Amino acid sequence: MSATNPEVLASWRPGAVRDAVTAFLDAAQDVPVVDRVAFFDNDGTLWCERPSYVQLDFFIDALRRHVADNPSADQPAEFTALLSGDNAAVAAIGLERIGAALAGLFNGLTPQDFTAQVRTFMATATHPSGRPLRSVTYQPMLELLDELRRRDFTIGIVTGGGTEFVRAISDDLYAVAAELVVGTLIDYEFTRDEQDRPVLRRTSTMLGHANEGPAKVTNIQTQLGRRPILAAGNSGGDREMLEWAMATEGPSLALLIDHDDAEREYQYASTAASFAEIEPITDVGTRLGWTIVSMARDWDAVFAPQSSPRK
Amino acid sequence: MSATNPEVLASWRPGAVRDAVTAFLDAAQDVPVVDRVAFFDNDGTLWCERPSYVQLDFFIDALRRHVADNPSADQPAEFTALLSGDNAAVAAIGLERIGAALAGLFNGLTPQDFTAQVRTFMATATHPSGRPLRSVTYQPMLELLDELRRRDFTIGIVTGGGTEFVRAISDDLYAVAAELVVGTLIDYEFTRDEQDRPVLRRTSTMLGHANEGPAKVTNIQTQLGRRPILAAGNSGGDREMLEWAMATEGPSLALLIDHDDAEREYQYASTAASFAEIEPITDVGTRLGWTIVSMARDWDAVFAPQSSPRK
Repeated sequence: MSATNPEVLASWRPGAVRDAVTAFLDAAQDVPVVDRVAFFDNDGTLWCERPSYVQLDFFIDALRRHVADNPSADQPAEFTALLSGDNAAVAAIGLERIGAALAGLFNGLTPQDFTAQVRTFMATATHPSGRPLRSVTYQPMLELLDELRRRDFTIGIVTGGGTEFVRAISDDLYAVAAELVVGTLIDYEFTRDEQDRPVLRRTSTMLGHANEGPAKVTNIQTQLGRRPILAAGNSGGDREMLEWAMATEGPSLALLIDHDDAEREYQYASTAASFAEIEPITDVGTRLGWTIVSMARDWDAVFAPQSSPRK
Repeated sequence: MSATNPEVLASWRPGAVRDAVTAFLDAAQDVPVVDRVAFFDNDGTLWCERPSYVQLDFFIDALRRHVADNPSADQPAEFTALLSGDNAAVAAIGLERIGAALAGLFNGLTPQDFTAQVRTFMATATHPSGRPLRSVTYQPMLELLDELRRRDFTIGIVTGGGTEFVRAISDDLYAVAAELVVGTLIDYEFTRDEQDRPVLRRTSTMLGHANEGPAKVTNIQTQLGRRPILAAGNSGGDREMLEWAMATEGPSLALLIDHDDAEREYQYASTAASFAEIEPITDVGTRLGWTIVSMARDWDAVFAPQSSPRK
């Protein structure tokens, strides 16, 4: 099986980036199967994160239903700011308080109920472009997942998004099992029903830190216990994970998706980190030897066909 | 493929317990593959936990090497109590302080170095019976793992032991990948070397609670995100996990290993929980409809052949 077969990675245009990917795939044939590990960021790497995160769309949808069901109730400031689309008010309140208020909407749900809510939303929601939200995945990345799987790679998703949100769609969209999704975690409470049978209830307490930056690497170690030789991301929150893959011995690949395609997707720059550094992440990647994927130049198609669930 | 084939579960003697296991396996053929999930406790369920936990043997071995390397140093009370085998002194100090002192022995190690230490120990250490420690696994349970895998089950290990300790041996002994091992977790620190490359260093801080009792269920949800329809254990620390499996709709099986074989292994009773309840766990299991496996009655062989790594 050779990566130079034109049917493989069909949506990747010929050029230096496609060559780097296929060279890595060929070199990885000599890596023991247990070490063939590839971890992918989700938002902006496997699917579109603009104009808003899909998970935020889901939260806002749940919030609208909550308010419709409780029309007379006084809504907290976090909710009125969000529903009015008042970005200045949202910024003034701060993401931490906004996030906690939104997490509270799902307080007490069982894991099954939360998953069902996500799947119901994803079955019908659409992107502002009119495309179903479940098909804002990137076709070239799906082809890469397929090819890695054919080559006996273990594939995981390491996301800043909610673990349970991404698990609800990961099998369907990416054929990635729940245990290979690591994200930002909300804790569960062990309770019992009237028949004394165990029931898990969602809390609104975050477990550990948000899964961004160095936390992506420590969480990979504690939750998955395997080290990637391929890591893919698109923002400063992925930097340490990509460096972690590149610092292995033997073949490795760090893929950085550059959103430079205003025509077919969006054009925006990510900085190395939202707090301290302001170096564009593409400059960091160039300095560190990453493979920088230009959506405009390297991808023949951007989005997956609209009616192609993965399984 | 039928579980009644005599080659399957060959070390399980005919009888009610074997019938219950094969009936479950047959019924599970109608369960969607994504829901075919089986989680196993490790100590006392997949391998022998007497006269001492294998992980404690490893810790004591590391402690002996530490003291030999630092002969002139004043040793803390935790270490002298452990090395003298003074169980009363160990009990007086308390397991929490003992555990923290032992975890400190590995402070600063990289994941690779810790794994290498475990594997070096396991390659040569022996059980008091003379049997290599790597073959104190139970042959009937290995056959069950094989049969579940043939039937497309996802198999995980949910242990009170250290996650990283069990991951170092899970692929070799059980063909279970690291991401499907959930145990008691020690945190890692993200650091950088002189070349500014990322390095993970082990701390001695426990992440969350010890993985016992209700924590086994919440950790299954947060770390694996899948619910078992088969759970196996041998002590009060497994009670909630077994109840969690039994409370699913559709076919389910809760297996409780009863250590009642003084001749071939050990004879001891576990209580429902170490703190509050004193009901024997076998009584709890009988009341709750679990399948109670008598090692003396139901197993034709106890231990795996001494020279049979799983892969």
